[in-house]
Amino acid sequence: MQKPLAEFIGTFTLVLFGCGAAVLAGADIGLTGISFAFGLALIGMAYGIGPVSGCHINPAVTLGAVAAGRMTIGDAIPYMVAQVAGAIAGAAVLLMIASGKADYSLATNGLGQNGWGEGYLGEYNMMAALLFEIVATFLFMVVILGATGANAPAAWGGLAIGLALVVIHLVGINVTGVSVNPARSIGPALFAGGTALAQLWLFIVAPIIGAVAAGILFRTGLLDGEA
Amino acid sequence: MQKPLAEFIGTFTLVLFGCGAAVLAGADIGLTGISFAFGLALIGMAYGIGPVSGCHINPAVTLGAVAAGRMTIGDAIPYMVAQVAGAIAGAAVLLMIASGKADYSLATNGLGQNGWGEGYLGEYNMMAALLFEIVATFLFMVVILGATGANAPAAWGGLAIGLALVVIHLVGINVTGVSVNPARSIGPALFAGGTALAQLWLFIVAPIIGAVAAGILFRTGLLDGEA
Amino acid sequence: MQKPLAEFIGTFTLVLFGCGAAVLAGADIGLTGISFAFGLALIGMAYGIGPVSGCHINPAVTLGAVAAGRMTIGDAIPYMVAQVAGAIAGAAVLLMIASGKADYSLATNGLGQNGWGEGYLGEYNMMAALLFEIVATFLFMVVILGATGANAPAAWGGLAIGLALVVIHLVGINVTGVSVNPARSIGPALFAGGTALAQLWLFIVAPIIGAVAAGILFRTGLLDGEA
Amino acid sequence: MQKPLAEFIGTFTLVLFGCGAAVLAGADIGLTGISFAFGLALIGMAYGIGPVSGCHINPAVTLGAVAAGRMTIGDAIPYMVAQVAGAIAGAAVLLMIASGKADYSLATNGLGQNGWGEGYLGEYNMMAALLFEIVATFLFMVVILGATGANAPAAWGGLAIGLALVVIHLVGINVTGVSVNPARSIGPALFAGGTALAQLWLFIVAPIIGAVAAGILFRTGLLDGEA
Repeated sequence: MQKPLAEFIGTFTLVLFGCGAAVLAGADIGLTGISFAFGLALIGMAYGIGPVSGCHINPAVTLGAVAAGRMTIGDAIPYMVAQVAGAIAGAAVLLMIASGKADYSLATNGLGQNGWGEGYLGEYNMMAALLFEIVATFLFMVVILGATGANAPAAWGGLAIGLALVVIHLVGINVTGVSVNPARSIGPALFAGGTALAQLWLFIVAPIIGAVAAGILFRTGLLDGEA
Repeated sequence: MQKPLAEFIGTFTLVLFGCGAAVLAGADIGLTGISFAFGLALIGMAYGIGPVSGCHINPAVTLGAVAAGRMTIGDAIPYMVAQVAGAIAGAAVLLMIASGKADYSLATNGLGQNGWGEGYLGEYNMMAALLFEIVATFLFMVVILGATGANAPAAWGGLAIGLALVVIHLVGINVTGVSVNPARSIGPALFAGGTALAQLWLFIVAPIIGAVAAGILFRTGLLDGEA
Repeated sequence: MQKPLAEFIGTFTLVLFGCGAAVLAGADIGLTGISFAFGLALIGMAYGIGPVSGCHINPAVTLGAVAAGRMTIGDAIPYMVAQVAGAIAGAAVLLMIASGKADYSLATNGLGQNGWGEGYLGEYNMMAALLFEIVATFLFMVVILGATGANAPAAWGGLAIGLALVVIHLVGINVTGVSVNPARSIGPALFAGGTALAQLWLFIVAPIIGAVAAGILFRTGLLDGEA
Repeated sequence: MQKPLAEFIGTFTLVLFGCGAAVLAGADIGLTGISFAFGLALIGMAYGIGPVSGCHINPAVTLGAVAAGRMTIGDAIPYMVAQVAGAIAGAAVLLMIASGKADYSLATNGLGQNGWGEGYLGEYNMMAALLFEIVATFLFMVVILGATGANAPAAWGGLAIGLALVVIHLVGINVTGVSVNPARSIGPALFAGGTALAQLWLFIVAPIIGAVAAGILFRTGLLDGEA
C-alpha cells in the first residue's frame, strides 16, 4: 500500500509540474524552463518518495527494472497501475488550474500531450519520433540502472537521473514533446483526446522497447560495474 | 537564540534574493531566472544555516513538521516569529536597493508580492490560485518530509527541496507568483499594501492547509519509508 | 569489453544529446540550453556508466589521465577507439532524427560541428579558437583530475565535471562551438564535411595539448592535494 | 606553494569563465546564463582545487575566514596575492580571446567590469550598490562558513556555495554586475580603466565589510551549529 501510494504521488507530481510548466508557463519559460521542470520534478520526488518506492514513476522504467532482473513482474503491476492513475489525476488537477484562466481552452492550448507530425511543435515525422523515443529511453534507462547499481555511489541516482531527464527534454521536445514514460503520455492524452489519443500507442511502445532493451543489456552484466 | 537567528537570516535571504530577482532583474532573467533564484536561495541557506535550525524558513513548513510529529508547537512558535520578521526585513532591504534606481516605483513595480486575478501576471482566478497553492505546498512538504526522513540519504534534503522549489515556481508564477510560504508573502505585502494585503489571507491559509495535510499523511506512516 | 562498451555509449550520448540540443532545439533553447545539454549529458553518464569505465568519453581526457600517471597508454587505446566510434554513431543517429523534419538540411543546419572564422557563430579568428580550446581543456582537466583525486570527496567528480562543462559551453560556444573533446568534434565533422573537416585538426590538437598539460601539472604533485 | 598555485588557477578560472560569459556570450545567454557561469565556475573549482586550498578564490572570503578564526592572517596573505594575480591573468587571457572577434573593442564592450550609476546596466545609484554588495557578501559568507562548518555535511560546501553565487548574480547583475569578490573586480578593472578603476574602491571595501561581519558573527558561536 505504501509503495503504490508513493508511485501515485510521484507520477502525479511529474505530470502536474512537467506538463504544468508547459501549459501554464510555456510561453514565458520556453523549452529550457519546461525541460528543467520535468527533470527537477523527478529529482524532488526521487528524494521525497524514493525512500519508499524507489521513485520509478514511469511504467517503462518499472518494466526495464523487471528486464534487468531487479524486480518481479508481480511487484511491477501495482507500480504501473499506480503510475497511470497518478498521471491521470495529475492531468486532471492541471486541467482544473489551467481552466482558471479565462482564455484557456483545452482544444487550443492542450495539456502538454505528446505527439508528432503536422501541427505538432517541430513537425517531425513518425520515424523520427519513434527513433528518438526508443533511443532516449534506452539511454535514460542506462543512467537509471547504472546510477542505482551495486557499484554506483549511494544516493546519487536521483540527481543523475533527473538531470538526464532535463537533457532529454532539451533535445527532444521539438520532436515528440518527450515522453520516455507511458504514464506521462497517457494522463494528458485522455483529456486532450483526438490526435493525442490516436498517437498514444507510440508513447507506450517506444519507451518500453528502449527501457527493456537497456534492462536486458544490464542483465548480461556488460554494464553492471566492475564487480 | 541560535535557531531563531538562523531562521531570521534564512528567510531574509529567501525574500531578498527570490523577490529581489523578480524586482531587480525580472525583465532580464524571465520566469526561469526567478524560479532558480528562489530555489537556489533555499539551497544556499539549507547548507548555510541548516546545521543550526534545519532551515525551515517557512511557517507552513514548520507547522507541517509539527503535524508530522517531528517538532513541538512550543518550538515552532519562535521559528515562525523569526521567519516572519526575517521576511519583513528582507523586503525592507530589497525596497531600499530597488529605490536606488531612478525609475523604480513601489506602486508600479511592486516588491514581488503574491496575488491573482485581474492585473496580476496570468490573471488566474481565485479558485485556481487556491488549488495551486494547496496542492503545490502539499507536494513540497512531501519532498521535505520524505527527503529528511529516517530512510532518506543524509544531507540530500537541502538540494532536493530547493530544486523542488525551482520547479514549483516554473509552474506557478503565472498563477499566484508562488507563495507556498506565508512569510515570503507577508514581507512584500506589508510594503506593497492594497491588493497584496487584501489577498494575503490566501497565501497564509492555503500553504498551511497543504503542508499540514502532508504532515498528517506522514504521521500515518504511509509515506515514512520502509522502516 | 565492458569498459569500451561503456565509453561507446557515453560518447554516443554526449554527441546525440549535446549536438542534438543544438541541431534540434537550438533556436528555441539558445546557448544556455545547449550548454546545459552538454554538461547534463555528461553528468547522467558519469553516474550511469562511470561505475564501469570512469566515464572519460573524451580522448583528450583519456590522454590527460595517461599524462597524470593514472592510466597506461595500453589501456587508453581501446578507450579512445570506443569514444570516437561512439561519437560517430551518435552523430549518425542525430542525422537520422534531424532528417525527420521536412526542412532540415545537413548543408544548411549542420550537425553541431565545431569551427571558427567567417560564417561560424561569433566569427572569432583561429588564434582565439586555439587559445580558448587549449585553456578551457586545461582547466577542465584540472577539475577532472582534482575532483577525482585521492583527497577529493568520493562521488562528487561527475557533478563537478559536468557543471564545469556547462560553464565552458556558456563561455565558448560563440568562439568555437566548444570542443574540449576530439571525439565530440570528429563525429559531426565526418558527416558535415567541408569546413568542419578542414578545421578538425584544431579540435584534436588543442584539447590534447590542454589536457596533457594539466596531466603533467598533476604528475608533479603541485595540485594533487595535501597528501 | 601548492595552495597559492591552486588559488591562482581557481581565481583565473572564475574571471575567465564568469566575465568571459558576459563578454563573449552575454548577448546570447542573458543574465541567467552569466549568473550560472559565475556559480558553476566556482563549483567546478571547489571540487577541482578545493582539496588543495579550500578554493576561496576571493580575498573577502579569505579575510572572512580570518575573522571567523578559521585561518591566520599569515596564511591569508599568500592566498590573497595569488587570487589577485590569478584574476589579472584571467582578465588578460579573456582580453586576448575577445580580441579575436573583429568588432570587439575593449572601450565599447568592456571586460565584465563591475560598476554602478549612469551608463552601467540598471543605472542604480552608489548607495544601492554599496548596500547590495555588503549584504550579498555577508549572506554569501554565511553560506560559506555554515556549509563548511563542523556540523555541516562534508563535501556539500562547494555545491551550496556555488549555487548561492548563481542566485546572487541573478539578483544583482543589474545593480553592480556583482562583485562580492575584490579579486574578480580588480582583474577586469585594471584593463578597462576609466570608470571601472575609479569605482573599484567600492568592490574592495564592501565585500570585505560583508564577509568580515559574517566571520565575526560566526566567531561568536551564534551560527556555528548545535555543537
